[in-house]
Amino acid sequence: MAAAGFRAFGAKGPAWLGRSAWAQLSAGFCSRGPAGAERPELPPRPTRARQQDGIRNIVLNDPKKRNALSLAMLKSLQSDLLHEAESKDLRVIIISAEGPVFSSGHDLKELTDERSPEYHAEVFQTCSEVMLLIQKLPVPVIAMVNGLATAAGCQLVASCDIAVASDKSSFATPGVNIGLFCSTPGVALGRAVPRKVALEMLFTGDPISAQEALLHGLLSKVVPEEQLEEETMRIAKKIASLSRPVVSLGKATFYKQLPQDLRTAYHLTSQTMVDNVALKDGQEGIKAFIQKRKPIWLQ
Amino acid sequence: MAAAGFRAFGAKGPAWLGRSAWAQLSAGFCSRGPAGAERPELPPRPTRARQQDGIRNIVLNDPKKRNALSLAMLKSLQSDLLHEAESKDLRVIIISAEGPVFSSGHDLKELTDERSPEYHAEVFQTCSEVMLLIQKLPVPVIAMVNGLATAAGCQLVASCDIAVASDKSSFATPGVNIGLFCSTPGVALGRAVPRKVALEMLFTGDPISAQEALLHGLLSKVVPEEQLEEETMRIAKKIASLSRPVVSLGKATFYKQLPQDLRTAYHLTSQTMVDNVALKDGQEGIKAFIQKRKPIWLQ
Amino acid sequence: MAAAGFRAFGAKGPAWLGRSAWAQLSAGFCSRGPAGAERPELPPRPTRARQQDGIRNIVLNDPKKRNALSLAMLKSLQSDLLHEAESKDLRVIIISAEGPVFSSGHDLKELTDERSPEYHAEVFQTCSEVMLLIQKLPVPVIAMVNGLATAAGCQLVASCDIAVASDKSSFATPGVNIGLFCSTPGVALGRAVPRKVALEMLFTGDPISAQEALLHGLLSKVVPEEQLEEETMRIAKKIASLSRPVVSLGKATFYKQLPQDLRTAYHLTSQTMVDNVALKDGQEGIKAFIQKRKPIWLQ
Repeated sequence: MAAAGFRAFGAKGPAWLGRSAWAQLSAGFCSRGPAGAERPELPPRPTRARQQDGIRNIVLNDPKKRNALSLAMLKSLQSDLLHEAESKDLRVIIISAEGPVFSSGHDLKELTDERSPEYHAEVFQTCSEVMLLIQKLPVPVIAMVNGLATAAGCQLVASCDIAVASDKSSFATPGVNIGLFCSTPGVALGRAVPRKVALEMLFTGDPISAQEALLHGLLSKVVPEEQLEEETMRIAKKIASLSRPVVSLGKATFYKQLPQDLRTAYHLTSQTMVDNVALKDGQEGIKAFIQKRKPIWLQ
Repeated sequence: MAAAGFRAFGAKGPAWLGRSAWAQLSAGFCSRGPAGAERPELPPRPTRARQQDGIRNIVLNDPKKRNALSLAMLKSLQSDLLHEAESKDLRVIIISAEGPVFSSGHDLKELTDERSPEYHAEVFQTCSEVMLLIQKLPVPVIAMVNGLATAAGCQLVASCDIAVASDKSSFATPGVNIGLFCSTPGVALGRAVPRKVALEMLFTGDPISAQEALLHGLLSKVVPEEQLEEETMRIAKKIASLSRPVVSLGKATFYKQLPQDLRTAYHLTSQTMVDNVALKDGQEGIKAFIQKRKPIWLQ
Repeated sequence: MAAAGFRAFGAKGPAWLGRSAWAQLSAGFCSRGPAGAERPELPPRPTRARQQDGIRNIVLNDPKKRNALSLAMLKSLQSDLLHEAESKDLRVIIISAEGPVFSSGHDLKELTDERSPEYHAEVFQTCSEVMLLIQKLPVPVIAMVNGLATAAGCQLVASCDIAVASDKSSFATPGVNIGLFCSTPGVALGRAVPRKVALEMLFTGDPISAQEALLHGLLSKVVPEEQLEEETMRIAKKIASLSRPVVSLGKATFYKQLPQDLRTAYHLTSQTMVDNVALKDGQEGIKAFIQKRKPIWLQ
């Protein structure tokens, strides 16, 4: 699969996105008119993507701008996440970054009063859609962090399903220093770490180390820099070796049940378990285990 | 009180279970017809229970099957939990296990397509009812873990009010390896540990150590193996020495207020405090404190 | 600003309190009739407050009674928190305590049956109002803890936005020992630390150390006793140097979005970001950053 094809999308979205979500995303894509009309010459894409053996690597690739989440960067990332996301060839996505800064958050030049409030709204809505999309995708998304992640960059790490970081990485929500409180990053941060930790980060802008981020739940794992790729790939390869429909059903159900009350959550997941057992890969896995052999996934 | 009497239950449930919960539990008990009719010779019970000085010890006792939570095991556990749960003689429950595996989760032989989807549904519903029951019980339930707890076994630990483990214990939700995503365990796990930790466990199946489980909130305490019983009994004896109605009111209120918004939670608990002060044991405790003497509980 | 003026309040509350909240608070203030009529000679205030450079220090000042949160203490604290809270001169509040006990919780002499249930209700409602008020205030509130904080005293720490403690501090909810389960403290505790930790504290009454409290999310930071004031003041001065409307908008939005579902939370905060960008201090901060100079806040 070539990265070149990543931009092309039809008007109809996949089922797992849901109608309303897709409508909003489409609106986001189309709100500035057809790309060709406004941008006769496309600038270089701020992300690059390649896929091999079911593992898609998306790299934030604008190190000179500290991988700022400009509107162009956000749309490029969104496009790379959405591209053929339903394909059986895709099993897991890794988001990493070029250079010493994972991402510095929004591009502040897009947020001056030279742009309209409508433009500012588009920036924040697109950013929120990308964060929501990560959870909606039918495959796990892993953040691989090697450096500083601040503001919406920290939000991106917090929004991924799994996050592996090198021990030299650090995390901050310093918007308050420049008069722009990290309210949208606070959504993801406030659901990842204890409230006291989130508020100290948000009110002071002070960074926390990778070890502190691990301690407080922002990260899944911290490793020395030289082991970062190896450990991330180990997790990605493991996930890529599993049954795709089983992982997809599990991810969707996890996020669906989490905000429910306990009884509703168990009602919902008990039905999922019955459905999962009835999947072909469910029966194959259970039988392989009983027969003490390796399962052969159909999908 | 003899363990022998543990199976006998009347048709009417205690008030704290609630009508709907009891209806479902009764249906669970009765769905396979009267025990005597279908099972003229009862197999050995997969759990054993004894009670002394207000402390009930329930032991998962099928080490050859790695204490799998078969339907029989789940019903036996449910029965031991429910038995005379309203009795003033019962103050606290400890769930432990025989052998090196605390519990390996569901019995996969019950989940092949040789059984109907209705049977699979009964397995998962009964399991969910047991997990919900632990929170509904009027006394605290402590998991004492000395070994491996996986899948629904890990869920059982996560569902207890308190969990003490030896440092050699470990915890995993490896269902995804056999094509059966741990969606029901994810309900309890996702409410016990940070989302990033839960998802890495669920997506990779990799185990976490007792120390990691403590760090992330799955456990209350980790001790060396030789101190496990002593520490667990210390906590149990402490709880057994307290006023039963006060502990019972406190437990019910805690779970009731937790999912509420802050103002509703304070409204609800402020009323509980007034009711608690008005309890005979409430007044006895307060007066004993003021008079610098030990309280003498009525109940 | 003199502490002497702290008691005087008009009938109308500030907008951020909300109508219903204010009605309840006013009712709380007035429920015992005009102060002058019942209390011709005012007793010494159980808190003291002073404010300098935007930082208000409120000190629980009844060390002989272990800074018990008597009704008088609660109302004095409430008054000190509310006093001119809308003033631009106020940027951040620190709550600390005189003596080796931060606070021992409710004054048990107010909870005997010599007082009416209505009186008990007033105690718990006023306490809950103070805890809710801390989150409603338009400036951050920091707990600076140097010693033991138990029951409602522990609740007060858990309710602050940020909490810094000396390493000799400890935290407990021991109400169960005297027949009065810490149900209201459980509201704040259950939202600050993992459920397993909260329930062990609530069921056993056992204290946890400052390090454990940090590990589990009850504290933002732990420092040696001799650095406690310095570190707390460092955080307070940092917050006092920031734009007040930006901090205020950020704090209100954080607590508003936290209980919402993810999509609603992003919808709400995306709008806040657009509003924040449009603030004069928002534009000043962004432009100062782009121009590589220090921002000059208007407010």
